[in-house]
Amino acid sequence: MIPHNQQLATVILQRIDELASISEVTGAITRTFGTEAFIKGRSLVAQWMQQAGLQTHIDNIGNVRGRLPCPTPGAKTLVIASHIDTVFNAGKFDGPLGVLTGLVLIEQLIEQKKTLPFHIELIGFSDEEGCRFHTTYLGSKVVAGQFDNNLLGKQDAAGNTLGDVIKAMGGNTDLLSNDAITAANWLGYFEIHIEQGPVLYEKHIPVGIVTAIAGQKRIALTFKGEAGHAGTVPMHMRNDALCAASEFILEAERFAASHMQQVVATVGTLNIPNAASNVIPGEVSCTLDLRSPSQQVLNSCYTYLEQLGSAICQRRKITFDWQLVQESKPVNCDANMNRLLANAIRQTGYDVINLVSGAGHDAVAVSAISPVTMLFVRCYKGISHNPLENVELKDLAAAVDVSAAFINSLIQKYNKG
Amino acid sequence: MIPHNQQLATVILQRIDELASISEVTGAITRTFGTEAFIKGRSLVAQWMQQAGLQTHIDNIGNVRGRLPCPTPGAKTLVIASHIDTVFNAGKFDGPLGVLTGLVLIEQLIEQKKTLPFHIELIGFSDEEGCRFHTTYLGSKVVAGQFDNNLLGKQDAAGNTLGDVIKAMGGNTDLLSNDAITAANWLGYFEIHIEQGPVLYEKHIPVGIVTAIAGQKRIALTFKGEAGHAGTVPMHMRNDALCAASEFILEAERFAASHMQQVVATVGTLNIPNAASNVIPGEVSCTLDLRSPSQQVLNSCYTYLEQLGSAICQRRKITFDWQLVQESKPVNCDANMNRLLANAIRQTGYDVINLVSGAGHDAVAVSAISPVTMLFVRCYKGISHNPLENVELKDLAAAVDVSAAFINSLIQKYNKG
Repeated sequence: MIPHNQQLATVILQRIDELASISEVTGAITRTFGTEAFIKGRSLVAQWMQQAGLQTHIDNIGNVRGRLPCPTPGAKTLVIASHIDTVFNAGKFDGPLGVLTGLVLIEQLIEQKKTLPFHIELIGFSDEEGCRFHTTYLGSKVVAGQFDNNLLGKQDAAGNTLGDVIKAMGGNTDLLSNDAITAANWLGYFEIHIEQGPVLYEKHIPVGIVTAIAGQKRIALTFKGEAGHAGTVPMHMRNDALCAASEFILEAERFAASHMQQVVATVGTLNIPNAASNVIPGEVSCTLDLRSPSQQVLNSCYTYLEQLGSAICQRRKITFDWQLVQESKPVNCDANMNRLLANAIRQTGYDVINLVSGAGHDAVAVSAISPVTMLFVRCYKGISHNPLENVELKDLAAAVDVSAAFINSLIQKYNKG
Repeated sequence: MIPHNQQLATVILQRIDELASISEVTGAITRTFGTEAFIKGRSLVAQWMQQAGLQTHIDNIGNVRGRLPCPTPGAKTLVIASHIDTVFNAGKFDGPLGVLTGLVLIEQLIEQKKTLPFHIELIGFSDEEGCRFHTTYLGSKVVAGQFDNNLLGKQDAAGNTLGDVIKAMGGNTDLLSNDAITAANWLGYFEIHIEQGPVLYEKHIPVGIVTAIAGQKRIALTFKGEAGHAGTVPMHMRNDALCAASEFILEAERFAASHMQQVVATVGTLNIPNAASNVIPGEVSCTLDLRSPSQQVLNSCYTYLEQLGSAICQRRKITFDWQLVQESKPVNCDANMNRLLANAIRQTGYDVINLVSGAGHDAVAVSAISPVTMLFVRCYKGISHNPLENVELKDLAAAVDVSAAFINSLIQKYNKG
């Protein structure tokens, strides 16, 4: 397949590069919520939206929003969006790719003088990564009417409150609720995003449909055994906390691997207090990260692994502590929108592949009020949150082809309706 | 069994307490080589030796030595010894118990006016723990003629060389070799020491015979996989370094456990660089400590585990690095002396139990030149190198009973000879 829209993809890449050149630090991409670099980047995106002819404004949480209105009375709104904030030392595609691909799609509609049966609103969300205030989805929560005003008192590392930062950016914290698109006005939400995982890369497929965004549980584990001299305590008299933890880690891996595509389990950190090479580990603390698109699977995995850890530790005479420290629910993408997206992929000539997003996205916040769908774009080896993050031109062009076909099919559907 | 020598054991415990009260720090026992506290402690032991009627002197490496001579021309020397230096924040029994039990045994011989067929030399070695210069067996190496003069340039944390410290204590570094007992003059070496392990405690037996002191290999391991997002990389696409390390840890445990009493294997430290709860571990470094009384078993265990780790990593597409960082050879105690010791235990009314010492002792250095034997004394839960280290009076009395019978059997044997 040779994608049609290589020229548009080139424009997108040029804009991504230009936006990436705006950073809090030289030599790296860092553009966290409310910083000078963030405001400068947002202004650039606003400028592009205006040049395209969109009704452009910055809302009170700092989202940049451009509207292509339709004349039909009572028309609903299709939101095409992603985020323009970044993590520290980020890649340039995570977020901006979705906003700037959305922009060329809309520019194309304008150029083609398409009559729309719905409004289209392009949004660059102001805070998806949550790096500054350790929050989630500030920008999209406001648009979805899900923002919690208690967050305004949260402080960043320097002691600035979220409310202060919003005001410093020119926002009015009393008017945040005015920025929501009300439930009745949503037609749907479409987000284009890099996969941030290796599946498309390994399968040599440029794009994939997101069926769900995984729910997550994060658990803090402690194994308490008995420290002892590595030379003098016979093997059968040991209560080695690290051996118990190792057994648990392998069982968690085995369980997740045997429930393919239903759950992932990761022990990411492991610490042995007072460790020494000649001392039997007396205590191990570690973290377990569980994710699944199914709340039922997530719950049963959680219960199973807690029981399994407990059984391992009982057999080994180890004290087992299991504490849930964080959780989020799975979100399903809209079946009807996904069907149209699948058709668009097929029409464009690609294989349809369904993916679960293990990472969170703004679509999670919007799903509370609107049908959502997401198109994932292949990225180099699945690497993300890293300067090595990369998307090839031809894959971006394929994403434009597929997205254009998808939006056209939505237009056709609602024109008929 | 009620041990006979409870009164002597009480004397030993009183002396152990008095020696323990001499420390570099208040509220803890720390008496490392060459410090003021060490010199003060050594003087106290020398004073006790002199009061007992021994020909007492301090040698050039700082050992305190007391001799009970025999009149027979060409008589050999039985050395009874242990060490009087300690680790930081030590227990009070590790070392002093052997020296001060030796002292009451000799006092008893003097009181009984026994005619000896060999000299007896009681030695309090000056440095077994090696905490100050990160060395091993300085004191016993000098007595065994195994001291390496290159060590004199070694520096402690404050930059003092070993040579300077020896001189400051009154030693002459040029005369160290004069302090050796030459090969032809050794009859044997007898050391009484706390077990520092839980076997006697668990088996409810006061004393045990050491058949061998384990050899050791310490290995630094690195597992290099690929870091990745804990949510976006499917289980079957992962190269999780921690899962590979966990599999290795369990296999090492299983292998050692299935070779009971032949080898112990311990992974004591484990580190994940750049660990985060939502990141698949890309790298793990850890240490493996292997000990065995048999060089052959140690070697084959070493080879087996290296191959096993390599195979695990090959299957998991993980890079495996295995570096030997330290090793020592196993030492066998003398079969003839151990037979006499076993008879002494039986005569005294206890079950004979053979133990392998997983920790090193001065007997290792002496074994290069003389037959050695060791008697282990039960200690509370096997705890050592810790203020909780404890030995009960009745166990110490049992050790006195057994040791006295052992020395008497040696006297009988050489009187006959």
